[in-house]
This record gives sequence, structure tokens and C-alpha cells, in this order.
Amino acid sequence: MTTTAPETTGGSHALRGVVPPLLTPLTPEGDLDRASLSRLVARLLEAGVDGIFALGSSGEVAYHDDAMRDRVLDAVVGEVAGQVPVLAGVIDMQTHRVISHVRAAEKHGVAGIVATAPFYAITGPDEIGAHFRAIGAASSVPVWAYDIPVCVHVKLAPAQLMELAADGAIAGVKDSSGDDVSFRRLATLNRAAGSPLTLLTGHEVVVDGAYLSGADGSVPGLGNVDPAGYVRMDRAARAGDWDTVRAEQDRLAALFEIVFQPTDKAGPAAGVGAFKTALRELGVLSTNTMSLPMTPIEGGAVDRIRTILDQAGLLDARR
Amino acid sequence: MTTTAPETTGGSHALRGVVPPLLTPLTPEGDLDRASLSRLVARLLEAGVDGIFALGSSGEVAYHDDAMRDRVLDAVVGEVAGQVPVLAGVIDMQTHRVISHVRAAEKHGVAGIVATAPFYAITGPDEIGAHFRAIGAASSVPVWAYDIPVCVHVKLAPAQLMELAADGAIAGVKDSSGDDVSFRRLATLNRAAGSPLTLLTGHEVVVDGAYLSGADGSVPGLGNVDPAGYVRMDRAARAGDWDTVRAEQDRLAALFEIVFQPTDKAGPAAGVGAFKTALRELGVLSTNTMSLPMTPIEGGAVDRIRTILDQAGLLDARR
Amino acid sequence: MTTTAPETTGGSHALRGVVPPLLTPLTPEGDLDRASLSRLVARLLEAGVDGIFALGSSGEVAYHDDAMRDRVLDAVVGEVAGQVPVLAGVIDMQTHRVISHVRAAEKHGVAGIVATAPFYAITGPDEIGAHFRAIGAASSVPVWAYDIPVCVHVKLAPAQLMELAADGAIAGVKDSSGDDVSFRRLATLNRAAGSPLTLLTGHEVVVDGAYLSGADGSVPGLGNVDPAGYVRMDRAARAGDWDTVRAEQDRLAALFEIVFQPTDKAGPAAGVGAFKTALRELGVLSTNTMSLPMTPIEGGAVDRIRTILDQAGLLDARR
Amino acid sequence: MTTTAPETTGGSHALRGVVPPLLTPLTPEGDLDRASLSRLVARLLEAGVDGIFALGSSGEVAYHDDAMRDRVLDAVVGEVAGQVPVLAGVIDMQTHRVISHVRAAEKHGVAGIVATAPFYAITGPDEIGAHFRAIGAASSVPVWAYDIPVCVHVKLAPAQLMELAADGAIAGVKDSSGDDVSFRRLATLNRAAGSPLTLLTGHEVVVDGAYLSGADGSVPGLGNVDPAGYVRMDRAARAGDWDTVRAEQDRLAALFEIVFQPTDKAGPAAGVGAFKTALRELGVLSTNTMSLPMTPIEGGAVDRIRTILDQAGLLDARR
Repeated sequence: MTTTAPETTGGSHALRGVVPPLLTPLTPEGDLDRASLSRLVARLLEAGVDGIFALGSSGEVAYHDDAMRDRVLDAVVGEVAGQVPVLAGVIDMQTHRVISHVRAAEKHGVAGIVATAPFYAITGPDEIGAHFRAIGAASSVPVWAYDIPVCVHVKLAPAQLMELAADGAIAGVKDSSGDDVSFRRLATLNRAAGSPLTLLTGHEVVVDGAYLSGADGSVPGLGNVDPAGYVRMDRAARAGDWDTVRAEQDRLAALFEIVFQPTDKAGPAAGVGAFKTALRELGVLSTNTMSLPMTPIEGGAVDRIRTILDQAGLLDARR
Repeated sequence: MTTTAPETTGGSHALRGVVPPLLTPLTPEGDLDRASLSRLVARLLEAGVDGIFALGSSGEVAYHDDAMRDRVLDAVVGEVAGQVPVLAGVIDMQTHRVISHVRAAEKHGVAGIVATAPFYAITGPDEIGAHFRAIGAASSVPVWAYDIPVCVHVKLAPAQLMELAADGAIAGVKDSSGDDVSFRRLATLNRAAGSPLTLLTGHEVVVDGAYLSGADGSVPGLGNVDPAGYVRMDRAARAGDWDTVRAEQDRLAALFEIVFQPTDKAGPAAGVGAFKTALRELGVLSTNTMSLPMTPIEGGAVDRIRTILDQAGLLDARR
Repeated sequence: MTTTAPETTGGSHALRGVVPPLLTPLTPEGDLDRASLSRLVARLLEAGVDGIFALGSSGEVAYHDDAMRDRVLDAVVGEVAGQVPVLAGVIDMQTHRVISHVRAAEKHGVAGIVATAPFYAITGPDEIGAHFRAIGAASSVPVWAYDIPVCVHVKLAPAQLMELAADGAIAGVKDSSGDDVSFRRLATLNRAAGSPLTLLTGHEVVVDGAYLSGADGSVPGLGNVDPAGYVRMDRAARAGDWDTVRAEQDRLAALFEIVFQPTDKAGPAAGVGAFKTALRELGVLSTNTMSLPMTPIEGGAVDRIRTILDQAGLLDARR
Repeated sequence: MTTTAPETTGGSHALRGVVPPLLTPLTPEGDLDRASLSRLVARLLEAGVDGIFALGSSGEVAYHDDAMRDRVLDAVVGEVAGQVPVLAGVIDMQTHRVISHVRAAEKHGVAGIVATAPFYAITGPDEIGAHFRAIGAASSVPVWAYDIPVCVHVKLAPAQLMELAADGAIAGVKDSSGDDVSFRRLATLNRAAGSPLTLLTGHEVVVDGAYLSGADGSVPGLGNVDPAGYVRMDRAARAGDWDTVRAEQDRLAALFEIVFQPTDKAGPAAGVGAFKTALRELGVLSTNTMSLPMTPIEGGAVDRIRTILDQAGLLDARR
């Protein structure tokens, strides 16, 4: 697969494949749980992931104050120890605030940073372009545009992303837009331009279709729970073995049902909460504690998550 | 492909494959252009399409008064002459109005009807369920749920669709939701339930991924312009020849760029307008006239559409 | 109040004041309940309303097939018998369909028609302008633009409304946009242009503020339940007696709490359902039956509605 | 006006009246312009404003890094020098980040802090309630809930605000929701509960209607440009002189047209940009520089803003 991604490119292109958005394990008191983080990272590396994305939405970045963000990056970079590239989210409202986080992330020696369009204050296309250009100029490492309208409430247009690529402002896109039609268009335009952008999809249940569209890899939140499955799917896609791709994706889509088990929660309280709960049941995390103001998943939903883990064959394989 | 769709089912299941949402050709005065319709239908049948969906969004159903809807159905059923099944859109605001259109469509002997969730007046899940159940009870032919939130402003939940299937209210789903994550979930739930629903995707540039997810076919607006391409892709998917599927889809995605050429239009004025303009340039339609209050595509956009048709190899092959 | 609305204008300007959007009383089987309609209209006229708006959102227009719309208009015009002007909603998706309803309404001798922007199919400003101009050209009676983005999903811009007024396409605006900032701007621009438009607000709990902004009157759904209150408020506003205006509006805002009593319904099933339930408890309507697929309000919500009616002093005054 | 707000309350209730959301004047390089800030604050105090809200949306809070926020608060508190209460915005994504800003603001001795619902990550009502309760528990000064769905993409429900008031978590609401129907309901519920909340509206062109609904005052961005007008309107409302209230509001609504003059900008680039441009033309600010990635208003829009200032009688009265 990905005949469009030349083998010899460096920089962000090295990051094709599976790049899970790392969860942030917490102690019961809400502090960073270093021991659980260590186990989680080790399990991902053992499964063969190609990179790790710290401080993304799945990492609860929006909930961490600056000191916590610093502790997380320090711990992740230390645990990964150069075995794979680490991307760091620099999520904040507007340009100056994002650049502050870029400065902090650079100190940790990350391989790239991931920034969204501006949010909270309303912006138009001109401001979005100026925003990414300013971040690109300020950053010493490659910049990934994070397209996540469910959080940012604006969709990055494929044509604008290609302009930013041509200007050297961005090196890749993490697409969590939920808009597969737009993603296909982006992939089509990118290929026609000589593939200046590395394209990763953030939607863990349709990675197979994204590979057909031209994705270079994925950033699957569910990859925290079953990294080996995503690695198998990626290797099968590279080999053109689509029956295996589809079978693996179908199995992972069934596993993804864990996020629908809490009936009283929405957003990360349900999704990230389900990932944390699954990993606690698998013995990887010590707690399923969530950042304030979220509360952890409890009761019957935990039982249903265990059942789904069992059906996916993960309970037996637990480390 | 679609090992989940048994070969021997009847009813709506017979409708797997390529089911283009038929454009409604108009005379310069805005009347139905029977001669152009005849050429358009003949070209689709010649290309091997598996069904035809009349009075969908691409057919400008929202713009036609009841008399025009009747003329369109009469003409389409006449031209198709039983060679493939004809589905009829019964698009209207709320239940009683939809049932009026069901009554009218039944007289034409259609193979199924396609209904959306209620719109204009706000409704919740209870009303949506009651709406489809009432339509299912009133219709003598299979009912397809048309999931099109960009028009209806509500998304049909996979779990509710499965309930409606279990109750026998609906036989299939035409998914134009633009939500591939939800579509994968629907396909997963449908397979687990024994595939009571036939699933067609309405998104012409990501049909390949939909096939991987479990789609039984497509309802591609662009299929009016290049029906042979969609038929080739469908047959390749059935044969498990994914390299051909992807190559064909990439070619069709490039052709889809015609809808982005008019820079001063949005919605059907751009999309359906581009399809009509392309078919006029291909000699199939006599005009690219659009229904009031839309205006046809003119000027440089027409030239750019011709160029794209040429690049896709369609101008040479013109009938 | 309304020093901006000249006393001597004719046409739609005659329609200033209180113009309730008439409910459509139904029999238990869902047919038009003529006897209840007769009592409802008589009660409104007795209270001194200045006009009646039939087939609006509160009249469940979206739920009625064409035959039912015809029966409603026939009955309303008959009951009103020329005592006040009758406006008729001609709500439908796109231009041709709206004009069909205009033709039907004209036969009943209504004083004006009320049309929304196009909906279902996506449109831009050009299509919206062409839509209202075509309706204006087709209608023999004044056209009111109905700004109701919660149903139509587009907001009519004040500047475009003023253009349509200058062109003679529209004579008034019924504002149910919920956007008081935009309404103030519309009123400001209208006054600067010599008040070509008559402006009515559809928001029954902030009519007092709308009068200050420059409204010529209101179309209050709650006016079906307490028409006398709205008439008193209107007369006080004309007299500049703002203490009375505010006190009356505060009382009516408290009465409006009836729409929040059903906890399992949304949209008209809750709002119109509460009005119908209140009027049944007041002895005006025989049932609180709602159009398919809605169900009537039942259980504890009915008791809470009675309590609120009692607190507003309406149960004692029941006719 | 505001017979509902007892004269003898302390705390946040002291903040009724006119509380402009202070602009943040910038040097051409984008640093804080202390001299311009000094002139701006002096002009507001001279006009008789009742408080000042620093670091709100109009203060470009979303664009400032933490160091800049600190400089702004330091400067504002210094300039105001205790003459009126100062509120400080603590706008950030989720609870921990907000509380960090509360800690920083407390050091400056502000009279209250203003916090929005969580944003970026999706939250439901439970998380919103927990968020405000945690902030209330953490803050040594009164907390104002800032209801601004255009930025936060969630609307604070009146019933939940009343619960938070009953729990002592919040002392007031700054309503920039643009939903006057909801505001009336909030005011009605607040009065019924003994007015635990002080209610300020953020919509500068409909303050008159908000006073009728039960507002205790306003937070008008346009009050940076014409503070005397808002003070006159407030004093007239307290005196029950509604003709003056309406005349003043009509004049201010005409002045507000300055924000519509830039045709190539949206959001704060247009609105706040117009306020800054007007104040530069009035000789109060040295520049109309905006925070990155916004650009200042230039060209014909500046001329049109001058014309509107002149029509409002502000150019002659310039200090």
C-alpha cells in the first residue's frame, strides 16, 4: 500500500504507519501515573507501532494545565527513549498560545508538533492560513495540521492544506474530521502535487477505507487497547493483502463498541473513558481515572466492556 | 465482496450494485425533457446499472411540484420498461405528506420507495421511529430509509435503523450521511443481525471504502456521468479485485472535481448542475437547465468541466 | 409605540398588532375538528386580535397533506368571516412547490401569504433572493418572509430583506429567528428606508423588547391560549405605557412555562402540544390530539400545565 | 429599573449597571500599549461606568499567552485603582486550566472572575455542572458564568444556572448567548428564586429589551466606544424613563453598524477591530493593531467607520 509515500523521504514522512494517540494514565488523585504510562508505552512499542502521539485529544490535552503537559511530555519521551518518533500536541486557542506550547515541546526533543486551527474566537480562512504559517515559521520541527472540527468547529479545506504544504508551513495532516469525502479529495490533490503531505487518519474503525483513499497511516485511539491489531492491518495494507486488512478492521470495529457502553456519558468521558477502562481490565493501567470535570466509567458498563474485550480475544492475551 | 448479501434474496435485496440517482433533464423552459431522459436512461442501462433511483436529491425532487413528480415517474418507469428495478423518492416534510407520495408512486409500479426522516418541524427519536413505521405500514413495496442529514438535519442512528429492520418497517438504507464511522457501525450491526438491511452508499468518491465496510452497492450521483466506471468498480469488488476497485475509484474521484468548478454556487446548483453540464457536453442532455430558483452553470466553469471530462477519457467515448 | 408605522398605510401594514398563529384542532382520529376550530377562532376574535395566521408552524402545516391544508384554510376563512385579515402559510421546500400553495391559498381570499426560504436542498443567498422574487411575482396578495432558521436552517439577512422590500417582493417579515440582535438591525434598517416592511415577532416571551426594537406586532403561539393578554400588551405598547407592557409580558412568560412540562418531547410535540393541552383544559378544544407522527401530552405534564394555567388566572376565566 | 435587584446586596450584586469588556490596546509590534490603555480606562471611568471586565472576548483573551494576560490584569487593576470593581476573564478549555487562571487573577485583587463552560473537548450537562462547582470551590471571589455559545458551542440552560446559584457556585451570569427567549426564562426563574444571580447582557444593541426582561446591567463591547451612552441608558432604565432608554439604544444600534463595515473579516477581526479602529479615530488608542493571526482594518472601511462616528456625534465630542 501507500505507493504514494516515497520510501526515501525523511522528516515527518518517517512517521507513516501506526501512531497511537497516547492516553494519559492518572492516579486516583488525578496526577500522572508514571508506572502505568511506562507499561502502556512498553506495550505499544512491543506491538511494533511506528510512532507515538502525545498530548492529543485522547491524551486529555485540553484538561491538563501547562505543568501537567510538561510532565507528560517528559515522561513519554523518556519511556520511548528514541525507539520511535514522538509527536506532541500543542493544542490551544490562538497563535501566540500555540507557539508557547511549541517552545515547551521543542525542549523535549519531539519529532514533530500537531496543531489545530484556531478556536474559541471565530476565525475565517485568512486567519487560519496566517495561524499555520506563523506556527510553521516558529517551529524547528515539522508541523502537522490536526483537522478536528468536532472540537474546533471549523473544517480545514483540502485546497488550503495543499497551499500550506506548498509553502512549507505543514508537513502532514492528522485527519479526525469524520469527512471521508473530503479526505479522499485531500489525498487526490496531495498525490497530484507529488505527495508533499503525510496523511494520517484518526478514525479507528474505517482505517481500511482510508488506506484505499491514500492514507499513509493512522492515529487510532483504540490503538491504545489493541496496538497489535492496527500494526497487522498496516502491514497487510502495505502488502496489498486486502482480505486481511478488512478482516482485521472488522474485528477492531467490533472492539470499538466499548465506547458505546457508558449510556450516561458523551465525548471523551465515554470514548477515552472506555479505552482507560479496557486497559485497566487488561492490567495495563492501574485506574480508569479521568481528568476533572469528567468521572470514570462504573457499574454495568465495565462488565459490558469486559465482555467485548473477551469476544475480541484480548482478555486471554493479557500481559 | 458482500458475502453478507445472500445471492438468493428477493425484494429489495435484488437491488444491490449500482443504482444511480437519476437526474431530471429539463427543457429551457423548465419542463421535463423526455428525449434527454430517454437518452440518459438508455445510457445507464447500456452500462449495466442494477437499478435506478428516481426523484432523489440529484433528481431535484425538492423542486418539483406534485404534477412534475408524477410526470417524472411516469417517464422513468416507461423508459426503464422493467429492465431493472426503479426506486422512487417520496421526499416530504412529515408522515402524512410522505404517504401521499407513496400512494402516487405505487400507481407507477415502482420496486421500492425511499423516505427520509421528518424535517422542517423538529422531531426526536420517538417521532422518527413512528414516522418510518407508519410509512412501512402504508407502503405495499419495500421502504428504504434515506439518511441525509445535510438536508434533513438529523442523523439516523444505526441502533434505531436496526430496530426498524427487525420490525419489518424498512428493507434498506441509502446512506448519504457523510459519516463513514457510523456507516461502519451500521454495517457491523447489520451483519451481526443476519443482514436484514441492504446498504447502499450515496458518496460517489469513497465507494471503495464503503465496500470494505460492508456496503451492498452505491447510489452515485456521478454515476449519471460515468455509469460504466461504477459498474466496473462494483464487479471488481464482487470479485475481490481491490487493485481494480481502487484504481477505478481514484479515476472517478478525479472526475468528481467537476462539482468544484462553479465558484459561485453551492449545493445542487453546483453538484447537480455540474452533472447536467457534463452530460450536455457529452451529448446526452440537451440543456443544463436547473429548477427554479437555481441558475445553470455558465462561463469558465463549463470549460473546466470539459477539460476534466477529457482527462477522464469520457469525451472520446461520447455516444 | 410604533411611531414608525404610519396609521394610514393599507395592505399588509393593516396587519400590525396581535396575529396569533392559529392551532389546528384535531379529532381523536386526526381529522380537522371544525367545532373546536370555531370556538378557538371566536375566542381570539372576542379578545380583539388584529389578524389570524393560518397554516403556520403552530398550525402543524408541515404535517398536513394538501387536502388538509385546503380544509383548514376553508374553515378558518369561513369562521373569521372578514372580521380580521387572514394570512396563510405556504410552507414548502422550493419555489415551484410554494407557488402551488400560493395558488391554492388565493382561492380562499386570504389577505397575505407567508413563505420561508427554500429548505431541504441547500441554497445560497442568490437562490434565496430568486425564490422570494418569484413568489412575489406569482402572488396576487402581499408576501411575508418567514424567518425561521430552526426549521429552515438558514437565517435571512437584514440587508437582503431590505433589498427584497425595495424590489416590492415582500411586504413584511415574521421573525422567528430567535436572533434579537439581527431583529434590531432589521428594524433600524427598515426605519432608515421609510418602513417598507411590517415587522412581526414570533417570540411570545420577549414581545416587549421587540416593541422597543421597532416591531409592529407579534405572532405569538401562546396567543392561542391567552389572546387577551397579548392584546392588552399591544395596546399598552401603542400608548407608551411600558410598566403595563412589562408586567403583562412577565405574566405571559410565566404562562409559557407550560411548554417545558413534557419532559419526553421536543419541538412542536412539546410546544404546540402544550398549547393544545392547555386549550383542552380550558374547554376550548375537545382534544389535544397531534398530527402523526407526534403523540399527545399525557400524565403528570397535564397536571403541571393545569397548575400553571391556574397561577396565570386562566382557569377561573374559562369560557 | 431592576426592582428585582435589592439595593443592599454586596458582592457581585455591586456590579450592576454598565461593565464594559475592556479592549486590549496593542503597540504596532503587538505588545500591550500601556499609554493607550490608560487613556481608555480613564475615559470609561469619566463616563461613569460601574465596573470593568478585563480579559473578555473583546479583550482578545483567547489570543494572549499567560504572560500577556498577567500584564493586562496588572495594568488594568493599576489604572482603575479601586474606583470601580474589576472582573477578570479566566477563559480556557477545561477545569484545571481555568483554575490556573483563577489563581493568577486572584493575585491582582480582582472583584470577581468570569468563566465559560468547558470547550474543545465535548462535555455534557454533568461535566458542565462539575466544572462550575470546582471553579466556585477554588475561587476566593465571586464567579460569573459566561454564556457564549458562539465560542463555546454549548448553551447554558437556565435551570442548570439556577441550580449552580442555589449551590453557591456562581453569583452572576454574563449572557452573550444571543438567545433572548432563554434570557427571559433565566430572569423569570431568577426572580422566582429571590434573585440569587446578577444578570448582565453582553448584546449591546438590545440592552433595552434585556432591561425589560430583568437584566441588572450590560457588558457592551461598544461601550468601549461610547460609554456615556450606555451609562445614560442605564440611569434612564433605573428611573423608568423608557422613551430615553429606547432613544439611546436606537442611537447606539446605529453606531454599532461600524462592525459591519469591514467586508473581508469575521468574528473579532471585524467586531473588536471596528471598536479599536473607532477609538483610534477618536484619539483614544494609538493603533488599531490586532492580535496574531488577525490583521487590522484598513482602507475604505476606516472611512465608513469615521462617517458613522460622525453621524453619532462622537467625532465632535472627541477628547
